[in-house]
Amino acid sequence: MNAKLSNSHARVQIISIAALRSTEAQPLLLHPDELSVEEPLEIRIAGETYATTMRTPGHDQELVAGFLLAEGLIGSRRDLGGIAHCGRLGGEGTGNTIDVLPAPGAVLDVEALGHTRRGTLTSAACGVCGRKLIDDLVLRLRCPAPSAPFERRFIASLSEELREHQPGFDRTGGLHAAGIATPSAGFRVVREDVGRHNAVDKVIGRCLLDDGLPASGSVLVVSGRTSFEIVQKALAAGLSAVVGVSAPSSLAVSTAARFGLLLCGFARNGAFNVYAGAARLSG
Amino acid sequence: MNAKLSNSHARVQIISIAALRSTEAQPLLLHPDELSVEEPLEIRIAGETYATTMRTPGHDQELVAGFLLAEGLIGSRRDLGGIAHCGRLGGEGTGNTIDVLPAPGAVLDVEALGHTRRGTLTSAACGVCGRKLIDDLVLRLRCPAPSAPFERRFIASLSEELREHQPGFDRTGGLHAAGIATPSAGFRVVREDVGRHNAVDKVIGRCLLDDGLPASGSVLVVSGRTSFEIVQKALAAGLSAVVGVSAPSSLAVSTAARFGLLLCGFARNGAFNVYAGAARLSG
Repeated sequence: MNAKLSNSHARVQIISIAALRSTEAQPLLLHPDELSVEEPLEIRIAGETYATTMRTPGHDQELVAGFLLAEGLIGSRRDLGGIAHCGRLGGEGTGNTIDVLPAPGAVLDVEALGHTRRGTLTSAACGVCGRKLIDDLVLRLRCPAPSAPFERRFIASLSEELREHQPGFDRTGGLHAAGIATPSAGFRVVREDVGRHNAVDKVIGRCLLDDGLPASGSVLVVSGRTSFEIVQKALAAGLSAVVGVSAPSSLAVSTAARFGLLLCGFARNGAFNVYAGAARLSG
Repeated sequence: MNAKLSNSHARVQIISIAALRSTEAQPLLLHPDELSVEEPLEIRIAGETYATTMRTPGHDQELVAGFLLAEGLIGSRRDLGGIAHCGRLGGEGTGNTIDVLPAPGAVLDVEALGHTRRGTLTSAACGVCGRKLIDDLVLRLRCPAPSAPFERRFIASLSEELREHQPGFDRTGGLHAAGIATPSAGFRVVREDVGRHNAVDKVIGRCLLDDGLPASGSVLVVSGRTSFEIVQKALAAGLSAVVGVSAPSSLAVSTAARFGLLLCGFARNGAFNVYAGAARLSG
């Protein structure tokens, strides 16, 4: 684990409480416990509220950067003038309101995207398979650039290595984790959050803020299940693979297959299943 | 398990696929597998798109009823004129577009709510604790009505009983479950879905469509973690308790405490933790 990884974990917010423990053998007993913190974050764009999301405070700038990329509002760091907690200029602040300023000359077209988010970008057709709806959702996505194939041994190692970077989960049992890793450098960033999508937005946001996107040749590793939305976020960041500790959904698999993304699931104890993009695998 | 429960499970959509299995000992081998189905559902109100959500198809009318209740758009079944898949009149249909008609005289004020959803209901203040944001989110919620206290033995039995009603999870490992139970009748409904909030919306929607809300004296049981949003949905339905198999978040606990909702977590192997509302417990 490198210094940046260690440092990042110190900031996962956890609170200590006294719960009551009920067992068959005994009456209710006081029981010291720890909870992962969940608080709302209001995301403003040039002063106007765009969205409110429930998240674990910390790394909010990363969360916003990753979220706006997945929403299609920004394409790279160059579109961003600044992301700052309300009342603060620059640096990582605290608080539950954060404002995004576009870069000079960049336009964050909230109105157009707002419609997409609320789904008013509709078709007259009522497709029974939802194909038109799905086509709209993947409109901006592209196939990841070609990269060296991943060795099976590397893929098999990722879930256990991610697990070593989840101190918040060890303490609370209530935090999801996401990480981004490469064969040559291992995990470059891991984040924990009460929301699985937030953890993904934070690690991708970190890469965006470091000018590290598109992240061809990198793998997104998630501690739980892989839904369509996680595949969508990985593709928006140009990642080559998604490895989940648990099951993928049908739409995660079909979308990964459509864009040639390597999608692995049930990555545990040195084994894993390959659901799409097996051509990106060697060894 | 009663007849309604058995019947409900038959309709959880699962597809069979051939994945590749990678283990240390062997080369990639074909491996038969099953995936939980995830598809978008476009929810329209009087023909206008209100939201698009990713869900496991089936019980879509319940999903929509529960979702609209949690959103504050409807208060009871009386506000609903009908919920039907596009192109079908009455009955449970299929497809990925569903339309809601208000009851004669009822108004579903989408515009006002749309603003809340997108978060444009903002305060000028930038609270560091998000208290104002949270206050806005719980504005419509009330304390559950008084009900007979729950025996500890009953609460302790719920997670294992829910587990018996999760055939989709047994097959795919990729489905969350939610159920609603009472001490006298056990589980009245259980639903599985790729989305945890969808499973909760479906069981609450079932109760709403059966004119069974507010459900004072009933318990919401969830297969995973308990977030703020799950507590919010339980309170909107007038339920008396939430029991989770895994951890609650800080905001789930503080919100349950604020409204006197019994909130239990880590309900496993006959034991559980009590995080709020212990006054609703006996035995």
